[in-house]
Amino acid sequence: MVIKSSPAIKSIDVEQMVKWLASFGQSAEGGTNRLLYDAAWTEAQQELEQKMQDFGLETNVDAVGNLYGKLTGTNKDEKAIITGSHIDTVSNGGVYDGVYGIIASLLATQRLYQRYGSPKKTIEVLSLCEEEGSRFPITFWGSGNITGKYQIEDGESIKDNEDTFLLDAMNKAGVQHKNQKSAYRNDIACFIELHIEQGMVLESMNKSIGAVSHIVGQHRFAIQVIGESNHAGTTPMPLRKDAMALSAELIHFITVEAKALDPDLVATVGQVNVKPNTSNVIAGKVDFSLDVRHFDEAILDQFYQKLTLFMGELTTLHDMEINCTQWLNAKPVAMDKKMTKLVEEIATEQSISYKPMISGAGHDAQIFGEKYPTALIFVPSEGGISHSPKEFTSKKDLENGVDILTELLYRLAY
Amino acid sequence: MVIKSSPAIKSIDVEQMVKWLASFGQSAEGGTNRLLYDAAWTEAQQELEQKMQDFGLETNVDAVGNLYGKLTGTNKDEKAIITGSHIDTVSNGGVYDGVYGIIASLLATQRLYQRYGSPKKTIEVLSLCEEEGSRFPITFWGSGNITGKYQIEDGESIKDNEDTFLLDAMNKAGVQHKNQKSAYRNDIACFIELHIEQGMVLESMNKSIGAVSHIVGQHRFAIQVIGESNHAGTTPMPLRKDAMALSAELIHFITVEAKALDPDLVATVGQVNVKPNTSNVIAGKVDFSLDVRHFDEAILDQFYQKLTLFMGELTTLHDMEINCTQWLNAKPVAMDKKMTKLVEEIATEQSISYKPMISGAGHDAQIFGEKYPTALIFVPSEGGISHSPKEFTSKKDLENGVDILTELLYRLAY
Repeated sequence: MVIKSSPAIKSIDVEQMVKWLASFGQSAEGGTNRLLYDAAWTEAQQELEQKMQDFGLETNVDAVGNLYGKLTGTNKDEKAIITGSHIDTVSNGGVYDGVYGIIASLLATQRLYQRYGSPKKTIEVLSLCEEEGSRFPITFWGSGNITGKYQIEDGESIKDNEDTFLLDAMNKAGVQHKNQKSAYRNDIACFIELHIEQGMVLESMNKSIGAVSHIVGQHRFAIQVIGESNHAGTTPMPLRKDAMALSAELIHFITVEAKALDPDLVATVGQVNVKPNTSNVIAGKVDFSLDVRHFDEAILDQFYQKLTLFMGELTTLHDMEINCTQWLNAKPVAMDKKMTKLVEEIATEQSISYKPMISGAGHDAQIFGEKYPTALIFVPSEGGISHSPKEFTSKKDLENGVDILTELLYRLAY
Repeated sequence: MVIKSSPAIKSIDVEQMVKWLASFGQSAEGGTNRLLYDAAWTEAQQELEQKMQDFGLETNVDAVGNLYGKLTGTNKDEKAIITGSHIDTVSNGGVYDGVYGIIASLLATQRLYQRYGSPKKTIEVLSLCEEEGSRFPITFWGSGNITGKYQIEDGESIKDNEDTFLLDAMNKAGVQHKNQKSAYRNDIACFIELHIEQGMVLESMNKSIGAVSHIVGQHRFAIQVIGESNHAGTTPMPLRKDAMALSAELIHFITVEAKALDPDLVATVGQVNVKPNTSNVIAGKVDFSLDVRHFDEAILDQFYQKLTLFMGELTTLHDMEINCTQWLNAKPVAMDKKMTKLVEEIATEQSISYKPMISGAGHDAQIFGEKYPTALIFVPSEGGISHSPKEFTSKKDLENGVDILTELLYRLAY
């Protein structure tokens, strides 16, 4: 069955509500700063809790500050369907990242209740306390505590740039973890996250919905090339150990090989630091980053093997040293096939164009996805821009996402 | 005729005298700081003037602070033979750069006078006030004023990093330009500069003397690649405009083509600045330097043509913008063939190994060389290191240089 939303139900405008929630932490320059447990974050969660209650949901803040708004199901034995996203932003972030998934969940739940009353299974709208890692050097603090990836104690030694401990910031924000059981839950049926794409795939293919099958695995490396700093005029080419020349050869190889190996593989050298970085001095040392992502671990491994082989060849050929340290090896996470297929079916039924796709960015869905059936749904990001005040998704796309989510929740919960 | 230096003449140790002159401006960490018109510079020129007088030379400080020590020739109508180098250093420089050429000239002149008395042609030992450009944004201030490349007035608007005007610094150093005629001379027969190589060619070929035929021309460019900054995970390779990937391809091309085009061509990308320079963000902009040197302008032009062609191809292929600005186009300067041949003959006669070579670095000899017959003679630099406290040339090599210079001056002046 397909819900055809009535005008009454549509009367709450998703775009307006997204902007309302995003207004907490809005800077004069148009950017958003809502970092974990800061004043804007605290106000946003409090106001959102009030809004959930206004909509008839039963609210609860867990031991780390995740906010739930529950629409209790008639079948008490069933586990809960969780739908939501994160309330925090990056520094000087945009309006839609995270917030959209929360608001869409709230509106979808409200519409379902208005139309059909209580569901069989409990639906919980979730505003996760943290995903971005923009204040403390930890990410997925919200979903991690719910799924057991983290315990509250993991936050004890973590400090922000101003030496404030995470747990102190949490207490200051009014999150009373000492009077509560942990945030861990074992009563979750599934998790659904609706999110902006933060890329330009949907836009470039003119699709409205992304049905995500996998969240990519990530290999991240710090690569250091050690040559010999020398005079740019007096050192003939054959006598050089030019760390920048070798780095350029390696970075070019990385780009060419990544393109050749698999269409879904991405490899990025985004950070390059040259020493001494002087125009008339041959570089003695270059440090650069390498970020490689794919949904299939075998492809990531294959790329790493090619990289290692080529680095070995370069080392021998140029008599220079290359140190390659892998500091992140995050495995790919598959979304639930049945739920993803349901998203595609609903889109087809509602005549909303969609594309099966991969998420190249990390999301809370990957944390839930490691333990529970999880669906991740994308709406387009204009120009692929995110983590920027320029982040934009059209009202029509925002509404399409809510429509898909509403029907998905209906089929799962009623 | 070949001079065989007597033990008496050898008794003034070139290494000791180099270290004595280099001691002015020596820092606790072992580096040398003797920047144009600063206190150490002033003391060094004053003490050197005294030393020249002790050696029986007639001294003169010109309108910009170049110090001459003259051994007057018997034939008054002949123009003067000038031999010397610069007294200033880079910041935290070494002991030998510049100073060695002055001391070697002083010792060679003293030895000739001790042995043969007055020459036919006047020999003038020259301690040039400035070559490095390390205090004021101007280079070759000493040789430039002598040859007419600069006038004193050119220094009027030039300030150092502490906003001191060049002419004020000059007055403070006791150089009284207002009571003097300009530093310009038109009575120069030829110029000879003995200098450390500042490269590793002589060392790697196990030669004691470099007989320089040309000082390279230099093309210097500022290259800017403009792409689009984007998310490293969510932007598929075909949708990217990765400014770092394109830069790497271009830098690799530069290295490969420079090696292929001519064995004497050198090309260096020493400075690379990436924006935003973040590991998980595709670079939107990369600025890098390009320094290309060769003694033949046609080769430099050929390289530039190849570069331009390839940049055009890349622009089209990747739909990105490349801006290439040439900010320096210094033409190659040929040394005097007869004088260079004489250096080689003398080296052969004295059984000192030599190599005909190119200077990849700039020297005062190139300023004189544009107007007067000029010879540039190199001695080896250990490890090719220069502009560093680690700069070193062995005592034996220092002595070989003085021996060659002494005989060259003998043949030219007596």
